[in-house]
Amino acid sequence: MAKKKNNPKEKLQELGKRVSSDIKKNKNPNIDVPIRALSNVSYDKRNKILVMGDKIAKRFFFNVAHAKKFMQTLEIAAISKKLIQEGKHASLRDVFYMAKRTIPSTKVNIVDEQPESDSIIEDLELVTENSRELLNINANKNGSIAGSVVVEDRGDRIDWSKMGSGGWSIPSNVEDIKFLKVNAKYVLYMEKAAVWERLHEDKFWDKQKCIIISSQGQTTRGIRRLLQRLNKDYQLPIYVLTDMDPWGIYIYSVLKFGSISLSHLSEKLALPSAKYLGITVDDIKNYKLDKHLIKFKDKDSSRLSQISKYEWFKDNKEWQRQFKMMKEMNAKAEIQALSSRGISFISEKYLPEKIKKKDFLD
Amino acid sequence: MAKKKNNPKEKLQELGKRVSSDIKKNKNPNIDVPIRALSNVSYDKRNKILVMGDKIAKRFFFNVAHAKKFMQTLEIAAISKKLIQEGKHASLRDVFYMAKRTIPSTKVNIVDEQPESDSIIEDLELVTENSRELLNINANKNGSIAGSVVVEDRGDRIDWSKMGSGGWSIPSNVEDIKFLKVNAKYVLYMEKAAVWERLHEDKFWDKQKCIIISSQGQTTRGIRRLLQRLNKDYQLPIYVLTDMDPWGIYIYSVLKFGSISLSHLSEKLALPSAKYLGITVDDIKNYKLDKHLIKFKDKDSSRLSQISKYEWFKDNKEWQRQFKMMKEMNAKAEIQALSSRGISFISEKYLPEKIKKKDFLD
Repeated sequence: MAKKKNNPKEKLQELGKRVSSDIKKNKNPNIDVPIRALSNVSYDKRNKILVMGDKIAKRFFFNVAHAKKFMQTLEIAAISKKLIQEGKHASLRDVFYMAKRTIPSTKVNIVDEQPESDSIIEDLELVTENSRELLNINANKNGSIAGSVVVEDRGDRIDWSKMGSGGWSIPSNVEDIKFLKVNAKYVLYMEKAAVWERLHEDKFWDKQKCIIISSQGQTTRGIRRLLQRLNKDYQLPIYVLTDMDPWGIYIYSVLKFGSISLSHLSEKLALPSAKYLGITVDDIKNYKLDKHLIKFKDKDSSRLSQISKYEWFKDNKEWQRQFKMMKEMNAKAEIQALSSRGISFISEKYLPEKIKKKDFLD
Repeated sequence: MAKKKNNPKEKLQELGKRVSSDIKKNKNPNIDVPIRALSNVSYDKRNKILVMGDKIAKRFFFNVAHAKKFMQTLEIAAISKKLIQEGKHASLRDVFYMAKRTIPSTKVNIVDEQPESDSIIEDLELVTENSRELLNINANKNGSIAGSVVVEDRGDRIDWSKMGSGGWSIPSNVEDIKFLKVNAKYVLYMEKAAVWERLHEDKFWDKQKCIIISSQGQTTRGIRRLLQRLNKDYQLPIYVLTDMDPWGIYIYSVLKFGSISLSHLSEKLALPSAKYLGITVDDIKNYKLDKHLIKFKDKDSSRLSQISKYEWFKDNKEWQRQFKMMKEMNAKAEIQALSSRGISFISEKYLPEKIKKKDFLD
C-alpha cells in the first residue's frame, strides 16, 4: 500500500520541482541516483536480506556523459506521473514504446532499446522510494491462488475458496488489493502449476487450512508481494515447494533473501522467514524416490557450485549438507516424482507429514 | 462434455475386454491404433481443418517389435481408468512417473522417458475416441479470462465479470465447466498477458460486450477448448490478436486449422471460423507504427517462408499478400507498439475501429 509519506505522485512532483528550481537559479540541474551495482549491495546477516548501500551518483544535465540519461529519467518520470493521474497501469514494454520517440528537430530517439527504459524505471524506484508497481508500471502476470480468503479488488469481492478448478488469476500488481478475510495457518508456494492443480483437486487448502499459490517457473513480483503481505500483515509462515535442483533452490533463494538486481526492494519483496519444504535430498531416501533421480548435466553441476557459494548459504550447515549430497548423487529430482507413490501421495502423506514434523530448511 | 456413446471409462473397459477375450481364445492379443504420422494427415479444404486419414496399425502382444508398446498401452489405459474411477486428474508428467516402474522380476522399466508415455496417451485418445482431458490427463495450465459470463465449476458459481484485476485463472481442463450465462458478442483472444491487463483495466470487455482471454505465448489446450465451446455452443466469433511476426501467425494457424501432431483432435480443438485481427502489415501504415518495426533475424525469415507454404495459406491471396509485404519489410512489430500512440489507444481506437470495419484476415 502507498504510505502517505512516500506518495508516488508527490515524489515525482518533488523531482520535477527540484529540477525546475535548479534551472531558475541557473544551476546545473541534477538528480541523486543511488548506485545499483554489486559494489553497493551487501548481505545483511541480521535481517537475512540483500540490502543496498548508501553510495549515490549525481546525474547532471550539463554533462556529456549524463545528459541522455538525465533526459530519459525526466521523460519516464513524466510517463509515470501521467499514468498515475489517469489511474492507468502500463507494462515495461508499454513504457518503452511510450518513451521511444524522436527528440523534436533531431534524429535522436529518447530510448532505442527496452533495457534503457527498464534501467531508468529502476532508478526511479530509488529516487522516489516507490516500487515500480506504485509508479503504475507493472511486471509480468502469472500464477493462480486458492484458499479460504476473501479479498476486495477494483470494487469486486473475490472469494478464493469459490473459484472452481481454475483459482483466481494473480494480477501483476497486487498493491491495491484489500484483504477482507484470511482464514489460513500458512501459505504453500510451489513453482509448478500442475502441482497446484493436484493439490487444488485434493482440496488440500481446505483440509490443511492453508493458501496455495503457484507460478510457472520464476516467481513474479506480484506473487512475491502477495506472499510478503500475507506474511507481514497476517503472520502466515511461507513454505516453498520446488524441484530438487539448482533452479528450484534459486527460486527459493530469490524469494527469501532477495536478488542483487532488486536489492533496493528487498524490504518490499524478500521473505526472510520463508522456509524450504522440499524436495530435499533427504526426501529421496525417506520417500523412496531414488529410482526417479535424473542425472545432472554440466550446467546443473556448475549452477549448483555457484549457488553453494552464495553468502547466505555459505555458512548454513544444513544447506551445505544438501549441496554436498546433491553433488555426490550428481542428480536432481522433480516434485512430480512423488506421483510414482500414488497420485495423491503428495497431498495425503508427503506434505502433511513434512509440515507436521516441521521438516524444513531455513 | 463426455457423450454417452463415447464414455471414456466404458471405452477403456472395452479395450481391456477385447484383449482378455483374445487371450481366452488363445489368439495373439492386439489393439488397433490409427497412425499418427504426416503420411496419414491431410488438410480438409471444405471444413478448413487438418484431419487424420483412416490408416490403422495393429499392435500385437506376440511381436518383438510391438510387445513393449503393447504393454505400455495397457499400463497407461489402466492408469487412466484408475484416475477416472477415483475422480482425479493427472498431468502428463504425473502419468509418466506413475507408469515408470520396473516389471516384476526383471530390470526393465515400463517407460524410461516421458515421450514414451506421452505418445501412448495420444494413441489412447484415438483408441478410445476421447481427448486426453476426458481420460483425466491434463495438459498445461495458463491464462486469464474476463467477460460478462457466469460459469459453474466444481460446484462453484464463478462470475467472470467480478474477478478484480486478476480475472479467472483458466484451468488445464475445461470439459466439466457449465455455462450459466453468456452475455457477449464476440471473443478476443490475445497472446500476451500484458495486453490482457491493459484491456481489462480499460473495461474493454464491458464496453464492447465481449470476452477477453489471454495465455502467455502458445495457446494451451484448455484455452483452445474453451474458445471452441464458446464458438460452437454460443456462436461467438473468435478474433485473434498477436504480434506481427511468424510466431504470432503460427499461434493463429494452430488455433484455426489445428496442428499435425493433434490432427486427430481437430474437431475438438480447431476453430475454422476464427479470424486474425492483427497486428497486420497494413496496420503499420494505417496506425503509424513504422518507427516501431523490429528487423527480422534469420530465424524469423526462414520461419516466415515455412509458414507461407502451409497448404491452408498457400492459396490464400490475402495472407500471401501479408507474407510478401512482411518479407519486403524484413521486419516485425509487436502489439505493444500501439502504446506509442497512447496507453489506451489499443482499447479506444485500434480494436473498436478494426472490429467495426470487420478488418480481419481469414
